[in-house]
Amino acid sequence: MPPAEVTLESIRAAGERIAAHVRRTPVIESEAINAGCGARVWFKCENLQEIGAFKIRGATNAIFALPAGALAAGVVTHSSGNHGAAVAQAARRRGVRARIVMPENASAAKLANVRSLGGEIELCAPSLAAREAAVARLIIDTGAAFIHPYDDPAVIAGQGTVALELLEQVPELDCVLCPVGGGGLASGIAVAVKGLRAQTRVIAVEPAGADDAWRSFQAGALQPAGAPTTIADGLRGALSARTFALMRAHVDAVVTVSEPAIARAMRALWQQLRLVIEPSSAVAYAALGDPALALRGRRVGIVLTGGNVDLDALPW
Amino acid sequence: MPPAEVTLESIRAAGERIAAHVRRTPVIESEAINAGCGARVWFKCENLQEIGAFKIRGATNAIFALPAGALAAGVVTHSSGNHGAAVAQAARRRGVRARIVMPENASAAKLANVRSLGGEIELCAPSLAAREAAVARLIIDTGAAFIHPYDDPAVIAGQGTVALELLEQVPELDCVLCPVGGGGLASGIAVAVKGLRAQTRVIAVEPAGADDAWRSFQAGALQPAGAPTTIADGLRGALSARTFALMRAHVDAVVTVSEPAIARAMRALWQQLRLVIEPSSAVAYAALGDPALALRGRRVGIVLTGGNVDLDALPW
Repeated sequence: MPPAEVTLESIRAAGERIAAHVRRTPVIESEAINAGCGARVWFKCENLQEIGAFKIRGATNAIFALPAGALAAGVVTHSSGNHGAAVAQAARRRGVRARIVMPENASAAKLANVRSLGGEIELCAPSLAAREAAVARLIIDTGAAFIHPYDDPAVIAGQGTVALELLEQVPELDCVLCPVGGGGLASGIAVAVKGLRAQTRVIAVEPAGADDAWRSFQAGALQPAGAPTTIADGLRGALSARTFALMRAHVDAVVTVSEPAIARAMRALWQQLRLVIEPSSAVAYAALGDPALALRGRRVGIVLTGGNVDLDALPW
Repeated sequence: MPPAEVTLESIRAAGERIAAHVRRTPVIESEAINAGCGARVWFKCENLQEIGAFKIRGATNAIFALPAGALAAGVVTHSSGNHGAAVAQAARRRGVRARIVMPENASAAKLANVRSLGGEIELCAPSLAAREAAVARLIIDTGAAFIHPYDDPAVIAGQGTVALELLEQVPELDCVLCPVGGGGLASGIAVAVKGLRAQTRVIAVEPAGADDAWRSFQAGALQPAGAPTTIADGLRGALSARTFALMRAHVDAVVTVSEPAIARAMRALWQQLRLVIEPSSAVAYAALGDPALALRGRRVGIVLTGGNVDLDALPW
């Protein structure tokens, strides 16, 4: 699976395919944040998608790219939450049934979100193996089409449309920071950014407690996930061979941030931007001051990936 | 003081005066909220102003409309918080000193906000009388220009620019709902809306625990404030003769909502819109289902006025 299966052209095609079904989210700048970090920072507000996360882009692109014949038995996926909501919403738009396998420890807000969108939830143990087994059984039993959360060129191309919009809204960025979990967003963004403006750096940021991408970059070879422990529940997934290959080709660096830094960044963004963002959305901002990134005086885009939070369990 | 001192023309002039200093805030619609209430609802996100509240509009218009000679000793105001931040920010932009009298029970977030914008805070007892006494002394001692939180035609015209933008962003609204405290926003919005589209209803919504506007409308004469008790700290102010006259001329109705309804609405908007809004911002949405307003099937604009919340003291 060569990286070329996701290209600037496939991302542009995704942008056209999903335009009627997803929001062009606003970009917000804060004078207070700029003054605090000595850079100019623009936040791309994917938390303001209808489902509260960028995942609607990839799921919509994948489901609308499939021929009707492949969708007769609906779609199925596994998700810690936001991809499940995205598949449910995209399937409803396409008029097909969606079954969503979710871990038992998914947040109440994410379960409710999927249910309200008409997704049929099947709970499983909170491990990748359990999820994949449940999905495999559903595919065999029902014939539903599998929409992978990230290891799918159509999903990755859909996520890349975030960067198409961001670079239209704020030209001449020096750097784009985004979180990395399974790598779908980071891959798609990196392909789009490098295709449009090669000199713009793309930095993927990961919780230190779920650092398989960082370890894989250090080793130069895909490393196993280990047992992720982070409040950033959207980033517990592990890179696939496909997303690792795309990231190696197009991402400039992977850096990690600590759990306290994620919680501090999350709170700071709630306070200063007045946006509800989930912990996964805060990791990129948490990395902003890392001296190794040398972002002082730079023009930086940060992707706020989602805002589905359990309001009864805030980390402060 | 005839109502004609605030006109569509003065609001348009305010819009031009403040354009370089305030944000054109986005309008957000939610399919989930529309489905839940059986109407189409657009939220005007004034919480996404740099200072986190619409108050920047009125303060900027008032301070930039004054001649330089009137600003030699800076400006002074009293505020439960957001107007204070607005005056501090607008004064900084104009390059003049700002003194802000704030009640001792103002939230930590609002105090910090004013301070970070360079406002010099003077604390006083939490009553209108104490605030006004402190401001009067500062005016006498320093010669600073007083920027009233709402009883000022320039401030009201500035707040009215919210409606200019909203009706450009979403034409053909059947109704605009906004909160009412001192009446600056409600007056300005009503003048703008009726000037642009007379058939659009304007409904002002007030906490039942701070219902002077409702009682004044019922009595047909300005009623005293009483002792407001509401979590909507931005709405504890009382109408002035000026704002009451403007509201009687241009606002279709005043309705009240209960404290539990405000807290429920606030939480629902955090969850569904992924926006941090303060309790004062939630009162209009809390009124949406009031059968007396007959909003089913209608196109409704709701002004989300601010998002400065003490994240350690959420009402759930």
